[in-house]
Amino acid sequence: MAVDGIAELDHDRARRRGYPEAVFCQGKSPAQLRAIATALAERYAGVPAEDVPVTLFTRADAERAEAVLAVLPDAMHEPEAQLLAWPATPPRPTGGLVVVACAGTSDLPVAREAELTARYLGRRTELVVDVGVAGLHRILARTETLRSAAAVIVVAGMDGALPGVVAGLVSAPVVAVPTSVGYGAAFDGLAPLLTMLNACAPGVGVVNIDNGYGGGHLAAQIAAPRAD
Amino acid sequence: MAVDGIAELDHDRARRRGYPEAVFCQGKSPAQLRAIATALAERYAGVPAEDVPVTLFTRADAERAEAVLAVLPDAMHEPEAQLLAWPATPPRPTGGLVVVACAGTSDLPVAREAELTARYLGRRTELVVDVGVAGLHRILARTETLRSAAAVIVVAGMDGALPGVVAGLVSAPVVAVPTSVGYGAAFDGLAPLLTMLNACAPGVGVVNIDNGYGGGHLAAQIAAPRAD
Amino acid sequence: MAVDGIAELDHDRARRRGYPEAVFCQGKSPAQLRAIATALAERYAGVPAEDVPVTLFTRADAERAEAVLAVLPDAMHEPEAQLLAWPATPPRPTGGLVVVACAGTSDLPVAREAELTARYLGRRTELVVDVGVAGLHRILARTETLRSAAAVIVVAGMDGALPGVVAGLVSAPVVAVPTSVGYGAAFDGLAPLLTMLNACAPGVGVVNIDNGYGGGHLAAQIAAPRAD
Amino acid sequence: MAVDGIAELDHDRARRRGYPEAVFCQGKSPAQLRAIATALAERYAGVPAEDVPVTLFTRADAERAEAVLAVLPDAMHEPEAQLLAWPATPPRPTGGLVVVACAGTSDLPVAREAELTARYLGRRTELVVDVGVAGLHRILARTETLRSAAAVIVVAGMDGALPGVVAGLVSAPVVAVPTSVGYGAAFDGLAPLLTMLNACAPGVGVVNIDNGYGGGHLAAQIAAPRAD
Amino acid sequence: MAVDGIAELDHDRARRRGYPEAVFCQGKSPAQLRAIATALAERYAGVPAEDVPVTLFTRADAERAEAVLAVLPDAMHEPEAQLLAWPATPPRPTGGLVVVACAGTSDLPVAREAELTARYLGRRTELVVDVGVAGLHRILARTETLRSAAAVIVVAGMDGALPGVVAGLVSAPVVAVPTSVGYGAAFDGLAPLLTMLNACAPGVGVVNIDNGYGGGHLAAQIAAPRAD
Amino acid sequence: MAVDGIAELDHDRARRRGYPEAVFCQGKSPAQLRAIATALAERYAGVPAEDVPVTLFTRADAERAEAVLAVLPDAMHEPEAQLLAWPATPPRPTGGLVVVACAGTSDLPVAREAELTARYLGRRTELVVDVGVAGLHRILARTETLRSAAAVIVVAGMDGALPGVVAGLVSAPVVAVPTSVGYGAAFDGLAPLLTMLNACAPGVGVVNIDNGYGGGHLAAQIAAPRAD
Amino acid sequence: MAVDGIAELDHDRARRRGYPEAVFCQGKSPAQLRAIATALAERYAGVPAEDVPVTLFTRADAERAEAVLAVLPDAMHEPEAQLLAWPATPPRPTGGLVVVACAGTSDLPVAREAELTARYLGRRTELVVDVGVAGLHRILARTETLRSAAAVIVVAGMDGALPGVVAGLVSAPVVAVPTSVGYGAAFDGLAPLLTMLNACAPGVGVVNIDNGYGGGHLAAQIAAPRAD
Amino acid sequence: MAVDGIAELDHDRARRRGYPEAVFCQGKSPAQLRAIATALAERYAGVPAEDVPVTLFTRADAERAEAVLAVLPDAMHEPEAQLLAWPATPPRPTGGLVVVACAGTSDLPVAREAELTARYLGRRTELVVDVGVAGLHRILARTETLRSAAAVIVVAGMDGALPGVVAGLVSAPVVAVPTSVGYGAAFDGLAPLLTMLNACAPGVGVVNIDNGYGGGHLAAQIAAPRAD
Repeated sequence: MAVDGIAELDHDRARRRGYPEAVFCQGKSPAQLRAIATALAERYAGVPAEDVPVTLFTRADAERAEAVLAVLPDAMHEPEAQLLAWPATPPRPTGGLVVVACAGTSDLPVAREAELTARYLGRRTELVVDVGVAGLHRILARTETLRSAAAVIVVAGMDGALPGVVAGLVSAPVVAVPTSVGYGAAFDGLAPLLTMLNACAPGVGVVNIDNGYGGGHLAAQIAAPRAD
Repeated sequence: MAVDGIAELDHDRARRRGYPEAVFCQGKSPAQLRAIATALAERYAGVPAEDVPVTLFTRADAERAEAVLAVLPDAMHEPEAQLLAWPATPPRPTGGLVVVACAGTSDLPVAREAELTARYLGRRTELVVDVGVAGLHRILARTETLRSAAAVIVVAGMDGALPGVVAGLVSAPVVAVPTSVGYGAAFDGLAPLLTMLNACAPGVGVVNIDNGYGGGHLAAQIAAPRAD
Repeated sequence: MAVDGIAELDHDRARRRGYPEAVFCQGKSPAQLRAIATALAERYAGVPAEDVPVTLFTRADAERAEAVLAVLPDAMHEPEAQLLAWPATPPRPTGGLVVVACAGTSDLPVAREAELTARYLGRRTELVVDVGVAGLHRILARTETLRSAAAVIVVAGMDGALPGVVAGLVSAPVVAVPTSVGYGAAFDGLAPLLTMLNACAPGVGVVNIDNGYGGGHLAAQIAAPRAD
Repeated sequence: MAVDGIAELDHDRARRRGYPEAVFCQGKSPAQLRAIATALAERYAGVPAEDVPVTLFTRADAERAEAVLAVLPDAMHEPEAQLLAWPATPPRPTGGLVVVACAGTSDLPVAREAELTARYLGRRTELVVDVGVAGLHRILARTETLRSAAAVIVVAGMDGALPGVVAGLVSAPVVAVPTSVGYGAAFDGLAPLLTMLNACAPGVGVVNIDNGYGGGHLAAQIAAPRAD
Repeated sequence: MAVDGIAELDHDRARRRGYPEAVFCQGKSPAQLRAIATALAERYAGVPAEDVPVTLFTRADAERAEAVLAVLPDAMHEPEAQLLAWPATPPRPTGGLVVVACAGTSDLPVAREAELTARYLGRRTELVVDVGVAGLHRILARTETLRSAAAVIVVAGMDGALPGVVAGLVSAPVVAVPTSVGYGAAFDGLAPLLTMLNACAPGVGVVNIDNGYGGGHLAAQIAAPRAD
Repeated sequence: MAVDGIAELDHDRARRRGYPEAVFCQGKSPAQLRAIATALAERYAGVPAEDVPVTLFTRADAERAEAVLAVLPDAMHEPEAQLLAWPATPPRPTGGLVVVACAGTSDLPVAREAELTARYLGRRTELVVDVGVAGLHRILARTETLRSAAAVIVVAGMDGALPGVVAGLVSAPVVAVPTSVGYGAAFDGLAPLLTMLNACAPGVGVVNIDNGYGGGHLAAQIAAPRAD
Repeated sequence: MAVDGIAELDHDRARRRGYPEAVFCQGKSPAQLRAIATALAERYAGVPAEDVPVTLFTRADAERAEAVLAVLPDAMHEPEAQLLAWPATPPRPTGGLVVVACAGTSDLPVAREAELTARYLGRRTELVVDVGVAGLHRILARTETLRSAAAVIVVAGMDGALPGVVAGLVSAPVVAVPTSVGYGAAFDGLAPLLTMLNACAPGVGVVNIDNGYGGGHLAAQIAAPRAD
Repeated sequence: MAVDGIAELDHDRARRRGYPEAVFCQGKSPAQLRAIATALAERYAGVPAEDVPVTLFTRADAERAEAVLAVLPDAMHEPEAQLLAWPATPPRPTGGLVVVACAGTSDLPVAREAELTARYLGRRTELVVDVGVAGLHRILARTETLRSAAAVIVVAGMDGALPGVVAGLVSAPVVAVPTSVGYGAAFDGLAPLLTMLNACAPGVGVVNIDNGYGGGHLAAQIAAPRAD
């Protein structure tokens, strides 16, 4: 679907991969986003909401979110996660549970982006907050929840030690999302990124720094219903 | 299981995580490896091979492999992958198929380590070689094989572009393993590592550079039999 | 041409290299730019526009563009590309076609800077947008256009995988322009820069991050008319 | 052309791109190289040498070169450049002249790899040595040679300043090849790589550190005969 | 000289080293700067200006400069260089000439800081602008001036190639000052810094990025009157 | 203590470690901080101030400090150090003396954060300012004070040389806190961080860049009363 | 004590700091080490061993150790830790206990260097091995031992997560020693170094990568007998 | 002087700069070095030694030194400094004194290279060893020597703190030479390099890591006889 000579939305992707396209808003102008939203609105005009595949708009700051909402006023908008979804109702969940564990309060925006992405891609989700390794009893107290997941997303900044600890507690795959939370030698997320890549416990797959969307997407794929 | 005051093998891990411990041989002396192998041999003396959980020995160079084989002469040894497994027979496969796609011939050792790890953790595997993006027809010709996988491991050095391309073709999760193949600005695997973390297509989880074991382990977990 | 003790414009360069000087506006004050523009205006006062060699003003933000336009109100100004050209009419095109392929919508400003530079240096140009490798069918559908070029400029951020893929499809040289589009481990363009330097397919020459001007200039030179 | 389950030679590439495949020897075992060489020998058995497309073997150290020569004893072998070509006779030159300028004696191996690559891809070549910027008169004395080229390859380590200086002297495109010559803050070629990417003079396309093959290939493409 | 429990001015330094203290304003609050300026004013109250040793205030943005000028209204203030000097009259020059060569117009603020520092430390100075290596004739035309210097300061951003070229032309020491002028792979001055450290021509001493004060100080020491 | 589903305060920590929790304010919203402060106020409502364990709020900019003060108006607030403490009265000091040595005036905010942290954790403290190594006599004049400490905190930016020099003068442990004071090749504190990690004198433990809180905490632990 | 014009042993240091000098053997020639050992032997000739202050020789590979032993045959030599001590008997222990926790078997050489250093500086020591965070029960089982220490040294490579976890369990200071154990994105110890600097739990002081000597020295100082 | 098509010796340099060419041996083959040495020998055949300008051969390992000595057996050869000089007798000294201060014994090879270079370029030299900042009394004891110099070269690895300390003690310029002595976070000399670039005391010019030749050359220029 060509939009204004500025974008080539990959609608074939839903067929090819089973998941809809997402629109990365950062770096796009509000005008470009309005054009993309308009093209979507026109394409699905008259189609019942439950038959319209969800489109996600990621990394949308206030100005960009407003541009999308001007065209799609009924979209879901979570400002903390800089995420919009249209239509607003997530699909009925299938597959396994996705648990999102978040090391600290400051990591919440990324954790929420991950959780909502997994939910809009069709999974049940559960969020566990403020369970960093400085007080191990907090994460150990949640072992049962973690073990009930088909995929665990672990979001952490600073030392990024949580995913390796969680991977040592569960048999499900762990999706590790480093965040830019921290300062100094955290180097905008480089430190937790390296920690996660070097996790002593196997079973950890890492995505980009602050990439809640990518973490949620990967976990949704892992926990998807499957007939081997 | 305490070994000689030098190691504390985590046999509880099989119970906790469902996967056996692996022994990381790099940095251990041959004498230490002999002691560990002896402890294993003694623990399972008299137990039928099919009842002994597999132990992997990873990153074992010739000298270290010899030390293990001196104690466990019937172990499987794949020198190219620097891997040993004892007992030598992998478990009967369960769960989904793991496909390993390898960008270039020079990436084969890491790809083989990944494939064997997945197989010894109980999955069926298939290896696809020399399908780098410089000649796209090679990977496109394997689309059907890739789409039959429950998890795809993609091993690539240099530009590391293959995982993102594969992720755009399949709906299964992609485990990306960057390798240190290349020179100059590949910076011993940093370049493909960054490429994979920034893959435009979502659905890519990255492990450490040259970490075939980690890639195989994560893919085996993703493709494990599951009852949601 | 000495300007105010602040610059030494290299008019000899047209003779030496066949291409006019460009004024890099970033880091120059508006007052300095006005002085430079005035010197140009005075030098070519009374000369017919078609006899005045084009001068480009690159990386001119709004304030700096305004300073130039205050003196040269009839200059071409493309705000998205932060580029001005004076006189405004590009030369009649000679040589081969320059195709600019742009991976994502967010890379458009750099792609436009490249395209306009090539055009003002005397080449025919064509722009192909939103053809990133996450959906290969998009770039494959443009193969014919790409193969008609004497030089292809490929502009991409994030994983920067597109230039290597394009180089595998065409026989013309590829000029790769990494962009700072992305976040986290894209490290402001470092990731795509490294990807491009390590492209598996030969035939890729890389320029600086976000250097649309440099990419357009190099492509214009490659596609220049030549008598061997 | 599948070789032994270890490689998939891209013979289609000659048709697609007009240039033959090269075999990157680093990281391949001598046994693998023998298998590849044997596959080549068998494919072209009985074909007159002048009808066999050239195959290059790059980055072949002594042991790997010996493996290739054991199968293809009549191949051209330049040990300094770690390059072999088979058949040994380069094609009759067409297109424009490629001049290779080499900053220091220690850069010669990379410069020779670049020159031979361009020659085996069908161009006339000329090599200019030891013309670093510490003594500018040396490069200035070669201005006429440089200006006769359709493409100039500049090979330099340490400060990597030569390509920018050459680009300021000629109208042809400059292909810059940084080398790992130097020590300390040269960081194995990182310093000249950055210098070249930031060259003040436009018209410089950069390839990977020590990538003489890539530099020669790109220059051969630039200087190829062309009908616009 | 203790100031307010916030600073310990090193007045002994003039005796020890022969050069006065400088006050680094960045990171100090306007209130702290007022306190320091007041302490100076009080200490030299009633002393004739020509007997007061010069104090430099470096890296003083508008707000900090204003704080100093509020106390020392007769100080010299050069906003472009973010420099103040009090008393305003530089000492009568002694020793050799310091020539400051500046690669581009955008490097002028740093070059001016270097020139003024050298002058206030007692040297004659001369500034040469916009003589980057992209047009070699510009720097070659100034060879005589450069050779008349007892120390040459070369200020350059981007590729940072100018100091090495100048060092090849003169017998005096060259003080190289990299600047943060540029973008992308210039990495805020890292690229020219590395270039200068790897200059092929010996005789180059490098100071910190954008450190015009340090460059001017070192050159003033080199060119100081000396009795061996 | 669960707060609003956004935080899990670790009150067990006082029992486990003997030191109260601190709230890292950066990255938390003012609303979240108000919720945390409210939870604290409610928990200790009616408890005499001297029986309430101190809670520190670190890295609180003006907006965040205001949010805390709105709920806990009697908290101690030091804006320069971006620190709040509630209750405002530090505990009666025990253990040894903590001396904080600060290299330059611009390092004062971090030094104050360190000093206040140590004081609120129960130690006597003393602050020594502007004793950088450029004028050694300043630090040498304070040798006696330094030698009276049970732990010395040294705060320095730029070259970060002071901790190694101090460690050579005293027998107590030195806690080194690098700061982001400086510019250019200080790389936001990386340079002093590396200097401190490589200090020639043993006895230096390093914390994160600008981490005055961490430095003060570690020093307070070192100087704690101890019965061996 | 001047040795041969090659070294200036700092015997004053024992008086100044209370700890003897150590000889860093790496980078010194065997001949230089023999000279230093000879100077020591001569200085203390005839002095009873218990009155001779211990000298440590650190980072002594086999060849260098042999050089020292040739002169001081009764020195203690621990090859794994590359450490020698002369005289061989450590001083009678005073102060608190130093516990060394070692994440993996491959970290043992550095852990042993730390432990022996602390012991030769006069502390009681205890070593806990193979307690990495991938199996938390291992470290939790040692909590009592850890809490009995006056200082805990934690040695870890790869993800370096152990020090932060330990710091959350104890009230004593933690000295963190990152090791170069690992591969790929461990970047020779950079990853665990950054993890430790960003540890979420306060109370961690970091020393250089593989610096067992420095870690042992700092812990010995922390646990030294003290009269506040 | 063209040598064998492999080098272009810059004999004009003596005239231009007043200092002879040096031959950088690293990266040159023994055969190439023999050719260069032969060309020198032939050029000055029959010329009295005192009329032959000195040529230095730098970074010559044993094999390369042997190649030079095979042709020029009477050359001076200092293996520790990897330096040869021919003719062997340095010129009669002129200008000021160059003092070389060396932080540790392991830095001696670089310090000797610097000292010999300055001597062969015509200066008096004096070497001060093992005066690192961990024991300040050592360097303070040499203040008088340092103050007698026209230029001070300071050679240091690890924390690289010595040049800044020395610069605070003298009025002459300091040439700082970082070395790769150290390990871990010294990153092969990066740490001391950054320290020196950020030295708090002005008056420090930095050269490349381990670049004793460059440091000696720059100091010789600074201390050269001068008529202002």
